[in-house]
Amino acid sequence: MAFLLKLEETIKNNNSLLCVGLDPDIDKIPKHLLTENDPLFEFNKQLIEATNAIVAAYKPQIAHYEKLGPKGLVSLEKSANYLREHYPKIPIILDAKRGDIGTTAEEYAKAVFDFYNVDAVTVNPYLGHDGLEPFLRREDKGIIILCRTSNPGAKDFQDLNVILNDSEGSKDSSSFDKLGTQNDKVVPLYMKVAEKIVEWNKLYGNCLMVVGATYPEEMGEVRKVAPDMFFLVPGIGAQGGDLKKTLEAGLRPDKSGLLIHSSRGIVYASSGKDFAERAREEAVKLRDEINKHRFGPFSF
Amino acid sequence: MAFLLKLEETIKNNNSLLCVGLDPDIDKIPKHLLTENDPLFEFNKQLIEATNAIVAAYKPQIAHYEKLGPKGLVSLEKSANYLREHYPKIPIILDAKRGDIGTTAEEYAKAVFDFYNVDAVTVNPYLGHDGLEPFLRREDKGIIILCRTSNPGAKDFQDLNVILNDSEGSKDSSSFDKLGTQNDKVVPLYMKVAEKIVEWNKLYGNCLMVVGATYPEEMGEVRKVAPDMFFLVPGIGAQGGDLKKTLEAGLRPDKSGLLIHSSRGIVYASSGKDFAERAREEAVKLRDEINKHRFGPFSF
Repeated sequence: MAFLLKLEETIKNNNSLLCVGLDPDIDKIPKHLLTENDPLFEFNKQLIEATNAIVAAYKPQIAHYEKLGPKGLVSLEKSANYLREHYPKIPIILDAKRGDIGTTAEEYAKAVFDFYNVDAVTVNPYLGHDGLEPFLRREDKGIIILCRTSNPGAKDFQDLNVILNDSEGSKDSSSFDKLGTQNDKVVPLYMKVAEKIVEWNKLYGNCLMVVGATYPEEMGEVRKVAPDMFFLVPGIGAQGGDLKKTLEAGLRPDKSGLLIHSSRGIVYASSGKDFAERAREEAVKLRDEINKHRFGPFSF
Repeated sequence: MAFLLKLEETIKNNNSLLCVGLDPDIDKIPKHLLTENDPLFEFNKQLIEATNAIVAAYKPQIAHYEKLGPKGLVSLEKSANYLREHYPKIPIILDAKRGDIGTTAEEYAKAVFDFYNVDAVTVNPYLGHDGLEPFLRREDKGIIILCRTSNPGAKDFQDLNVILNDSEGSKDSSSFDKLGTQNDKVVPLYMKVAEKIVEWNKLYGNCLMVVGATYPEEMGEVRKVAPDMFFLVPGIGAQGGDLKKTLEAGLRPDKSGLLIHSSRGIVYASSGKDFAERAREEAVKLRDEINKHRFGPFSF
């Protein structure tokens, strides 16, 4: 099933917009797991068993696996296989933020979609269309493109004001009119990236974008140019994003369209043998907090 | 030894600015290697044996290894170990174009520098300073940041004109004066990225940047703001970059400062048993062609 359909179904089945990070850092996981044959996989397996009825998706961040070399990637492979076998309805998003020239991006797409066989991947837009095209043409997969990230350094480049020149402006003006910038044709870089993602989504139908929770105003602006799209939203929890403001700014009228990611606050809630149970509790709490804002009588 | 010193020494010893890609695509390597226990490693080993006296650096592109999953990364690990053991003076650049928020970038830096133990890595600037800092503070390593890439899609975002606002403009104006843009404070995004890289290099001393050969004019502009820095230059050969124009635009007065990358034209020069010997011939040809322009009586 195409990623976006699979995602919508799991959101409905589990009544959840929560995306849990499967981020087993060998230096942080509970010590009792270190005697296991494959501690990273064991950590993930217990988390999956505890939270599979609460999540909309799982998102392994590949760096934690890569840190251990090939052995760590065996843990990733086993985790993805385990999910597909036991919980085939839950989409797996590989957070890899890949980006390269076309011929190389082709190889990355094969790694992600043919070898690990995940449902979606995060990618970096800096190299432009031909670097993303080998991902985009995998129409049954979700291509989640960085737009406005949640970290402080995002301002270094993503917030720069860019001028859209005439030939480009004429093409873009109608959509920017929605922003109220009318004819001045000056937008922050992340808005230009958002516009491009909307354009690519019209062509390929399988795009999402990353919009961090740490800047709800920016999320509101992006929502205006991408009213129908799905955003993957990091930055709630450890990074300090405000959940209520994020939901107010980003939810679509159908009370969906956001995938709220949390990792550290959930998977490292306890470093004891109860880590999976504590993760479940934290996941339930966050899912319910999100749903309170989505459906509550006093919401907004 | 710090990466930049190691690089300068090998450039001198081998009289070469050539960086050869160790890009063993399982679908392209000579068929007779497929019966080997580790075809990717065997391909690299023979290439290394044939070209080690001709190169300034080797650059494995990690996607070709990742495509095969954990097994492919064992080939990468063995290739890096082989180089370190037999040719410790030749720097290894891992082309991975990583980029993420700080905590995740930290994990990527451990993968690249602690596990694979390479001398340098390519990184993507879209997430800004805090995403690069875990790399930058590895002062003995080379951090090669994407500036202007060699692919057609580079124009999508890298060429956009950005406005430097007042508070920023006052800080930046002196350096942009060198560009002849005086006080209008409008530059292409890649120039703003170049400026930031120059700034970071002043702080950390270990930065290089990627400037593609396919746009020699852009390279000339970048050289003006980064007169002393090293550029990694992809795009010669298969991608169509003009070697002479690239060298004219990018060489420093000391006839160095560029690392000219080539992969397909060298490592896939033959698909027969003579592939390594043919790679050596192509490498010698390109190295000599570069040196002709660097040192020839009629150069420029």
